Amino acid sequence: MLLYNSPVSGNCYKVRLLLAHLGIPYERRDLDVVDRSNRGAVLAGLNPDLRVPTLVLDDGRPIAESGAILWYFGEGTRFVPEDSYDRAKVLQWMFFEQYSHEPAIAVVRFLVAYSGEPAKHAELIERKTADGYRALVAMEDHLASADGYLVGERLSLADIALYAYTHVADEGGFDMRPYPAIGAWLERIASERGHVPIDA
Amino acid sequence: MLLYNSPVSGNCYKVRLLLAHLGIPYERRDLDVVDRSNRGAVLAGLNPDLRVPTLVLDDGRPIAESGAILWYFGEGTRFVPEDSYDRAKVLQWMFFEQYSHEPAIAVVRFLVAYSGEPAKHAELIERKTADGYRALVAMEDHLASADGYLVGERLSLADIALYAYTHVADEGGFDMRPYPAIGAWLERIASERGHVPIDA
Repeated sequence: MLLYNSPVSGNCYKVRLLLAHLGIPYERRDLDVVDRSNRGAVLAGLNPDLRVPTLVLDDGRPIAESGAILWYFGEGTRFVPEDSYDRAKVLQWMFFEQYSHEPAIAVVRFLVAYSGEPAKHAELIERKTADGYRALVAMEDHLASADGYLVGERLSLADIALYAYTHVADEGGFDMRPYPAIGAWLERIASERGHVPIDA
Repeated sequence: MLLYNSPVSGNCYKVRLLLAHLGIPYERRDLDVVDRSNRGAVLAGLNPDLRVPTLVLDDGRPIAESGAILWYFGEGTRFVPEDSYDRAKVLQWMFFEQYSHEPAIAVVRFLVAYSGEPAKHAELIERKTADGYRALVAMEDHLASADGYLVGERLSLADIALYAYTHVADEGGFDMRPYPAIGAWLERIASERGHVPIDA
């Protein structure tokens, strides 16, 4: 099984973190996160959106989109709840992450810490930072009255999906001190048995 | 069951289309798509992201995010495949829609046709239009060699999710003539038994 990967991408880290928890072995092929010129040649026929992560199963069939890859391996394990309402809530947080959280927090982190030209993107960074804080407020409000995790009382795909970029939001300049419930949740996830860091 | 709805929102239309196919009755409460000032008061406690669609089940439990609502009602029906790989591919297209398609095509349509001030957003419209055409190319390339639908040989949640904004992309100024496979797919979906239009 082959994961087209980027070492710094939170979207790829989600997949690596779940596969580590599940003890599923795989090979990695790292693609450059700044120079994306070869992505068409490498990923054509595997991922219509030419992004990482893209996973190729042993039989050659590909799966794209971090959320879909998580679901493929998570279904039937402890990371996807058995109750259908709870499953919907896990997907709710995963779609929230891709729509309202990642396009703000991950983009700011990339522009600030990895693009090599943050000054050129100052206006975009400012706007996306405001969007990112809105996403953090939504998480904080929910986690402040939750049972330790985003859905239910144990780690699910929702936590894995949102941990990925939230735990490195500070690299983009986000001040996490006003979000104590998020802070406690991040520590809880990092202390789970089987956890691996983003640079593992 | 109550759907917090917007009549022109494709994200809400996805939910209405699936519920129509499934014959599930519900009430609607329409929220204004331009003046969003009351959304916090209406949706607080129901949707951490304060967006429509938000669905409240008969027992009072809410579900947010169109993709999660589709999954909740679609699981166990003909709209979610039984094969786990096919299920992952359905989710792949649903996440693609929310990450790469909707933020371009839906936003352009809104700014051009509904915002009341398209000239003010000319630069954003231009950039998002380019993103939208990239999403259309990805769909066209896939559908040109697919079996009539995005996943497999019958209508799934993937088609419902991507039909919603693709079929009104022309309202945002997108020229759909270069995409004949998309055109045939749109007609196929609209001719499905049980289909309802966005203004139904």
